[in-house]
Amino acid sequence: MSDITEIGAPVNFDELSKFNDDITNPTLYKEKWLPKVEAFRRARELSIPDHYKVPTEEVPKDLDEKPFDTIHYLQTTPHISAEEREITDLSVTQLAEAIASGKYTAVQVFEAYAHRTVVLNQFTNHVFEFFLDEGLERAKELDAYYQTHKKTVGPLHGVPVSIKEIMRMKGKRHTGAYVSKIDNIPEEDCTTVAILRRLGAVFYVRTNEPTTMMPDEANNNYIGQTRNPNNSILSTGGSSGGEGASVSSRASAIGMGTDITGSIRAPASYCGCCGLRPTSRRVSAEGAMDGEAGQENLLSVFGPLASCVTDIDHLMKHYINLGKPWETDASCVAMPWRAAGEKYDSAADLSKIRVGILRDDGTVRPHPPISRGIQYVEEKLRAAGVDVVEFPQLLIKEADDIVCTMQRADGGHSQKVLLGESGEPLFPLVRLYLASVCNTAPMSITELRALVVRRDNLRCAYTKFLNENKIDFIIAPTHAGVAPVGRHDGIAGAYYFQYYSLFNILDFPSLAMPTGLRQDPKVDVPYTNQEYRNELDKLEGQKYIPELFVNAPISFQLAGRRYHDEDVVAFGKIVEKILQGN
Amino acid sequence: MSDITEIGAPVNFDELSKFNDDITNPTLYKEKWLPKVEAFRRARELSIPDHYKVPTEEVPKDLDEKPFDTIHYLQTTPHISAEEREITDLSVTQLAEAIASGKYTAVQVFEAYAHRTVVLNQFTNHVFEFFLDEGLERAKELDAYYQTHKKTVGPLHGVPVSIKEIMRMKGKRHTGAYVSKIDNIPEEDCTTVAILRRLGAVFYVRTNEPTTMMPDEANNNYIGQTRNPNNSILSTGGSSGGEGASVSSRASAIGMGTDITGSIRAPASYCGCCGLRPTSRRVSAEGAMDGEAGQENLLSVFGPLASCVTDIDHLMKHYINLGKPWETDASCVAMPWRAAGEKYDSAADLSKIRVGILRDDGTVRPHPPISRGIQYVEEKLRAAGVDVVEFPQLLIKEADDIVCTMQRADGGHSQKVLLGESGEPLFPLVRLYLASVCNTAPMSITELRALVVRRDNLRCAYTKFLNENKIDFIIAPTHAGVAPVGRHDGIAGAYYFQYYSLFNILDFPSLAMPTGLRQDPKVDVPYTNQEYRNELDKLEGQKYIPELFVNAPISFQLAGRRYHDEDVVAFGKIVEKILQGN
Repeated sequence: MSDITEIGAPVNFDELSKFNDDITNPTLYKEKWLPKVEAFRRARELSIPDHYKVPTEEVPKDLDEKPFDTIHYLQTTPHISAEEREITDLSVTQLAEAIASGKYTAVQVFEAYAHRTVVLNQFTNHVFEFFLDEGLERAKELDAYYQTHKKTVGPLHGVPVSIKEIMRMKGKRHTGAYVSKIDNIPEEDCTTVAILRRLGAVFYVRTNEPTTMMPDEANNNYIGQTRNPNNSILSTGGSSGGEGASVSSRASAIGMGTDITGSIRAPASYCGCCGLRPTSRRVSAEGAMDGEAGQENLLSVFGPLASCVTDIDHLMKHYINLGKPWETDASCVAMPWRAAGEKYDSAADLSKIRVGILRDDGTVRPHPPISRGIQYVEEKLRAAGVDVVEFPQLLIKEADDIVCTMQRADGGHSQKVLLGESGEPLFPLVRLYLASVCNTAPMSITELRALVVRRDNLRCAYTKFLNENKIDFIIAPTHAGVAPVGRHDGIAGAYYFQYYSLFNILDFPSLAMPTGLRQDPKVDVPYTNQEYRNELDKLEGQKYIPELFVNAPISFQLAGRRYHDEDVVAFGKIVEKILQGN
Repeated sequence: MSDITEIGAPVNFDELSKFNDDITNPTLYKEKWLPKVEAFRRARELSIPDHYKVPTEEVPKDLDEKPFDTIHYLQTTPHISAEEREITDLSVTQLAEAIASGKYTAVQVFEAYAHRTVVLNQFTNHVFEFFLDEGLERAKELDAYYQTHKKTVGPLHGVPVSIKEIMRMKGKRHTGAYVSKIDNIPEEDCTTVAILRRLGAVFYVRTNEPTTMMPDEANNNYIGQTRNPNNSILSTGGSSGGEGASVSSRASAIGMGTDITGSIRAPASYCGCCGLRPTSRRVSAEGAMDGEAGQENLLSVFGPLASCVTDIDHLMKHYINLGKPWETDASCVAMPWRAAGEKYDSAADLSKIRVGILRDDGTVRPHPPISRGIQYVEEKLRAAGVDVVEFPQLLIKEADDIVCTMQRADGGHSQKVLLGESGEPLFPLVRLYLASVCNTAPMSITELRALVVRRDNLRCAYTKFLNENKIDFIIAPTHAGVAPVGRHDGIAGAYYFQYYSLFNILDFPSLAMPTGLRQDPKVDVPYTNQEYRNELDKLEGQKYIPELFVNAPISFQLAGRRYHDEDVVAFGKIVEKILQGN
C-alpha cells in the first residue's frame, strides 16, 4: 500500500475516526458470521452465468492502482454485440415503446442488459446479488402476456430495473449490508418494489451499498468496494454506489436508490448519470433496512437514477400516478405527479426563469473541476437566455450544524445494535461516521425538538428568500470534488457531504446531473496558494491531486421548491437540452 | 360546592391527578404575576362596549348550577334585532355573497356579530380578548375598498372570523393561556391568520382555551371557564372551547381552532357546530403557543369550526388555493384543494359509497345519547341508500397506547417550563393531564423511534383495511358522552379522548358534525345493569346522570383517508343534507 500522504489523505485520520464503545468482535465474527458470509460469496459467484462473462484476462489486475475506463470498454468490446448496444443505448421511454411496438421482446432486452451487467460487474463489483434466472423467467412471462393480450402490463413492461439492496424484496435476502441480517428473507416486497413490479419492471440484480449506508462509497463485508466505471481507482460514492455504476454504464435501464444526505446524488454525479432526490413522502421509503426506522426529522427518501432526465420524469409520473404509493404506504403524500408549471414546459420563455447559482458554500471550496463545471453550466444557461443570479451562502453553517447534530441524535444507538450483533469489522469510513455520531451522548427529546424548530425556521428562511428574490431554482455543486479515490481502506474518501445535505434538510427536490464535461488533469490544475478555511476544507482540499481523477464526470445539482418535483424535473429537461447543445 | 359524588365524579380523582415535581409557586405567582393578570382582566372588561350588553339582570346568577340555553336566548331576546338575526343566520357563502352584491356593508355585518358576541360572552365567558374597535375599523376599510374598486378583496371580504388565542396575531398578546407569556406581543401574524386577513376576514375577538391546551374544557387563570351555550352547566369542551361557543351561537361566522387529540372536534360536537380536523400540514400550524414546538410525531393541526359543512368547504378551498400556505410555511404540503372525487359529488350514487360504523371502541362505552345518535345517523344513511357496514375495533388499544405514550415523550418538560416560570395555580384537569405525562421519565430517542414505527404500522393497517373492504369513510362517536359537566373545578370533565385521538394518530381528516338530535333525559335513560369494562369506562360511565346533560347536542364524526380532506368534506355535505331531510 502506498503512503497515505501520496493520495492526499489527512494525516490525522486515525484520530478523527476514533470512537468510544467499539462494537466489533473479531472472535464472534470469525466463528459465527464469517462462515455465513463466505457461503454467501460462493453462492454469489455461482449465480453469475459464465456465458455472459468476458475472459478473465481482459480484466486488468491493477484496476485499483491504474485508472481503467469500463464504460469505454463496454462501448467498444467485441464481446458485446451491436444489437445489444442498440438496445442498451435506448432511453427508458424509447425502450418501453420499442417493446410495446413489438420491435424487441422483453427477453431480448433482458439478455442485452444481463450480459452488460455481468461484464460490468467483472470490472466494478457493483452487484450485491444476482438473480438473472428469475429476470429471464419474468421477461418470458411478460412476452407471453404481450402475445396473448396484445398489450403491455404497464409503462415499464420489460424494462430492466436495478434495485439497491437496502430495499425489501420478496424472497430475497435483505441485509442493508449488515452481516447481522444475513439470514433475513422477507415475504413481501416493499411498496416501491411492488409498484415497479406492477408497472412491468424486470428485476435481476440488487446493487451494492456501504455498511451503515452513511459512507460516500459502496463497500461492505459481503462483497467489498464497488469501482467507478469511468476510472477504476475512483469510488462510485454512495450509498447507492452500485446503482450509480449500473445506470451510468447502461447495465440497467433505470435504478432505484435512497438518499438521506446525498446517497442518490453522490453516485449519480460521480458515475455520470442523473439522480433525483425527490421531496420526502412522494416516493414510498417504507422497507429500507437501515438504522433510520422511526427517525422522521431528517428523512431518507427513495428515488430514481437514470441516464437522462426524461427517464426520471417517465418513472416518477407512472410510479406516482399509476402506483399510488399512498394506497399501501400511509406515510406517503397523496399527491399526483402533475404537469409541470407552464413556466417550465418545453416552450418556456427562458428569460422568465431565474436560477440562483451557489458556487461555493463558504465552508469547503469546490475543487478546480467542480468550479469549472459550475461556470460552464452558468455560461450555457446565460447564453440560452436564462436569468442567472448569484445565490448567497444563506444560513449554510446553520444547515450543516442541524444536519450533523440530527445525525447523532440517538448517539449511534441503532447502528451499534445492527453492527454489534455480528461484531463485523468496520471499514475506515464507517469508523469515521460512527466517530461523528457515537462520541456524544444521545440527545434528549427536548433537545431534538429544539433542533426541529431550527430546521423548520431554516426551511422557511429559504422559502422566503426564493419568493422574495423570485428565484425558481438553485444550481450548486453536488460535492467539493469529483468522485473520490476509492481505495478499499477508504481513507481517501469523501468526508464532506453538506453540499448534498443542504437540500435534504430543506427537503427540496434535487436533481444531480452531468455537465457533460470530465476532469482533465491538464485543465483542472490545483489552485495556487490555496489557504484552507478550516479542517474540513483542508481534508477535502488536500486530496485534490489532478492525475488521480482523470475522466471523472463533472456534475452539478439542480434544486427547487419543496413538493415541486415536477418543476425541477421539467426544468432539468430544459437544462439537459441546453448542455447537449440542442 | 356540591359533593363531587353528586355529579358522578370519580372518588379517586385526587389520586389520579397527583404528579411529581409540582411547578406551582403560590408566592411567586401572587407577587409577580397575579397583578399582571388582574390588570389584564380590568383592561378586558373595559374593552367590552357597554352599548352592546344586555342588562346584567337578564343574566341568571345560577348559570353554573342550573341549565340555561343561551342560544335560545340569543334567538329570542328583543335586544337583538330581526335584521341582526337575518345577518348572523347566513352561511359564510351567503354572507360573502350578500356583501359582494352590496346587500349588506361589512360594517353592518360586523355590528351584528359584535353585538351578538358581547351578549354571548355575558353568559358563556367565551372571549379571551376583545378588540371590537379594530374590527370596526377593518370593516370600514373593506367597505371603502368595495366602494372604490367595486369588488371585494377576497372570498372572506367582511366575514367576521373568530380566532383561538393560541394563534399568533400581529400586535396582540400571545399567551396560549400560560400566565408566563402575558407580556408576549408578537410583531407578525402566523401564516394562517395572515392568509385569512388577506382573504378579507374581519378579526375582532380571540377566544378562550385551557392552560396547556390539553384538558377537554376552556379554563385558565386569565378569565376562567367558558360555558356551553346550549346548557350553561356544561363545558364547551376544549381546547378550542371559545370557538365552539362562538361559532355554534352565530357570534362569529366561522372560526379557527387547533386539534392534537380532539381540540377542534370536541367543542364543535359539544356546542353543536361542525369542526374539521384536516390532515396535517394542509393548513399551516405555524405560530401556535403551546408545548408542542418541534414535536412532529403526533402533530397539532389548525382547522375551521363552522355552522355547516359548506362553509368548511368554502374556507378550506380558498384558504388553500388562494392562500397557498406553503409559500410562507415550508412545513405545509403544496397540495391544492381539489374538486372531490366524482364518487362523492352532490349527484353521487349513494349505493356506491360504503361507510363503516364504529359504534363503540370497546374501551369506553358511549353514553345512551351518543349510541342513539350513531344509530340515528346509521338509519338515515341506510334509508338514503348508502352502503353501511360495521367497522371493527381495529387495533384500538394499540392506537390508544401509542397516543398516550407519545404524549409523555418529553416527560411533560415543555409544559413544566411554560407553567413553572409563573408558578400559576393548576386546574384539576391540568393536574390530571400533567399526572399522565410527568410521572414517567422522558423517553429516549430510541424509544420514540420505536413508537413512530408502531404509529406508521397502525396507519398502514387502517389504510389496508379500508382498501381491502372498500370502505370510503368511518363514522364514529366523537366522545363517549355529550358535553361534559363544566364545573369550574373541572373534576366532572371528560377524561377519555381516544375516540378523537384515533384519527389524530392515523392523521385521517375527521369532521365533527351535529346529528340534529339533542340529549333528552326522558329518552336517554342510563343503561341498566351496566358492567364497567375498566377504570376509564367507569370514570366516564358513572358521570352519566341524564338530568345534567339536557339539551346538549348529539354529534358524531366522519373520517376518511389521509390527504383526502376534499372527499370527507364533500360526503359531509351529503350527510348533512340527509340528516336535514333534504
